[in-house]
Amino acid sequence: MKLLRYGPVGQEKPGLLDAEGRIRDLSGHLTDLGPAALGREALSRLAAIDVASLPVVEGSARLGTPVANVGKFIAIGLNFADHAAESNLPVPKEPIVFMKAVTSLSGPNDPVMLPKDSVKSDWEVELGIVIGTRASYVEEAQALDYVAGYCLINDVSEREYQIERGGTWDKGKGCDTFGPVGPWLVTADEVGDPQSLDMWLDLNGRRMQTGNTRTMIFTCAQIVAYVSRFMTLMPGDIITTGTPPGVGMGMKPEPVFLKAGDVMTLGIEKLGEQRQDVTAWQRRD
Amino acid sequence: MKLLRYGPVGQEKPGLLDAEGRIRDLSGHLTDLGPAALGREALSRLAAIDVASLPVVEGSARLGTPVANVGKFIAIGLNFADHAAESNLPVPKEPIVFMKAVTSLSGPNDPVMLPKDSVKSDWEVELGIVIGTRASYVEEAQALDYVAGYCLINDVSEREYQIERGGTWDKGKGCDTFGPVGPWLVTADEVGDPQSLDMWLDLNGRRMQTGNTRTMIFTCAQIVAYVSRFMTLMPGDIITTGTPPGVGMGMKPEPVFLKAGDVMTLGIEKLGEQRQDVTAWQRRD
Repeated sequence: MKLLRYGPVGQEKPGLLDAEGRIRDLSGHLTDLGPAALGREALSRLAAIDVASLPVVEGSARLGTPVANVGKFIAIGLNFADHAAESNLPVPKEPIVFMKAVTSLSGPNDPVMLPKDSVKSDWEVELGIVIGTRASYVEEAQALDYVAGYCLINDVSEREYQIERGGTWDKGKGCDTFGPVGPWLVTADEVGDPQSLDMWLDLNGRRMQTGNTRTMIFTCAQIVAYVSRFMTLMPGDIITTGTPPGVGMGMKPEPVFLKAGDVMTLGIEKLGEQRQDVTAWQRRD
Repeated sequence: MKLLRYGPVGQEKPGLLDAEGRIRDLSGHLTDLGPAALGREALSRLAAIDVASLPVVEGSARLGTPVANVGKFIAIGLNFADHAAESNLPVPKEPIVFMKAVTSLSGPNDPVMLPKDSVKSDWEVELGIVIGTRASYVEEAQALDYVAGYCLINDVSEREYQIERGGTWDKGKGCDTFGPVGPWLVTADEVGDPQSLDMWLDLNGRRMQTGNTRTMIFTCAQIVAYVSRFMTLMPGDIITTGTPPGVGMGMKPEPVFLKAGDVMTLGIEKLGEQRQDVTAWQRRD
């Protein structure tokens, strides 16, 4: 299934994408696509619904983050050896874990706002893992049993805040709109092997990132098992798993950073595409 | 007001502490002490209630985290110059920001569990700021207007995970039970100046940490203003503001770390006290 949330910011309804690519409304069956909708049994109930019985949503609805009430937005750093190299950082011996503020979550096609004094905002196409079942100290061999599905994420990053402002990376990773997720949560059964998915990102129509999840240093199963030793993973938690090479910070002869008016388009095989207009910061109340 | 949540884990009800130190039930007035209860008007409505009209909670109720549905649990590192020195780290030029997993939140007197292979778990008495009003790019002079109140926090930390396992500090800061908060959220009007509060922590009855918030490098107002430039602060977000010297990692001639059977007691002037039994890890489902 391709599960999604559609509608204005803060008023999203649950839905799914049918075989013809139309949004079908799920709000007759559940209030929202929050943690309680992501367990094995809850997903089985959704899968048993006759899609033809669901109302078609006409027109072009905005898409929100496909999961509601995300508790933790966890991220893995430098998980592609060639991206570590372009960042002038060593290949990690064990996963680098940091956190993105949940207030950075936004819809897959919502604008990305540059922070007020940002001079080094950058892009990162990534595979996201959505947890379906509470996971604590799980073994790698069972780890994917705890996953509801996968999604496309742009792990937008302000490199000056991340690297040059002291302390941890979190400062440059959690700015508002720095976490576009979606268009869909694609359930694990439909994705199959998460370690063989092509991924790409274009800036203003020019290909910047090309990769495949098979070159991840730590696999999704390893990441879920690893993180579950440091904190209990809850249904609805999202883990974004690192980016392949081609970020702006690594460009030669000079780094390239985002400016207002830029357009990012990105995609991962089976998980859909995103498109974000880059804008100056503006108040959102 | 001293606001609190009491009852079994996951079933807490809202309450307040009356002038005689008894818990009074607030559940006739609000569902829970979540983000919607923390704004200026909502707090004024609570303050207008005749405390004598509220049912007294008899017996000794467990206390939970005094805020429900915390979105972000943000932390400031090395915010006391003498603690930076004992950690062999330079005094930061601007606040160090990291994040604690929201799953680490626990009640003020709940046990603290050592992670399965923990050898370097440590204590940190800290002043916590609870945000009452959405804050984005606020100025230092106005920053405290966005604060609902303050609370006592033990920023429990696994030093091996934090420092020796690669990447950011988040890995050693967000383990389950590593965030005891409470006993109360003390509203800002009752605290007055947050920069003149004595703080202390005892391990097994021996004084380990002594400090006062007046020696914080960055004040609460500076911290709220600073963090609000990197992420929007939402009602219910908690910022823990750093610890004075006396953590186990800094002990001479040898560091001292937590072991099962230890007891931590800690307090901050006007904000109450906590007591935690340290235990081995155990599954909590």
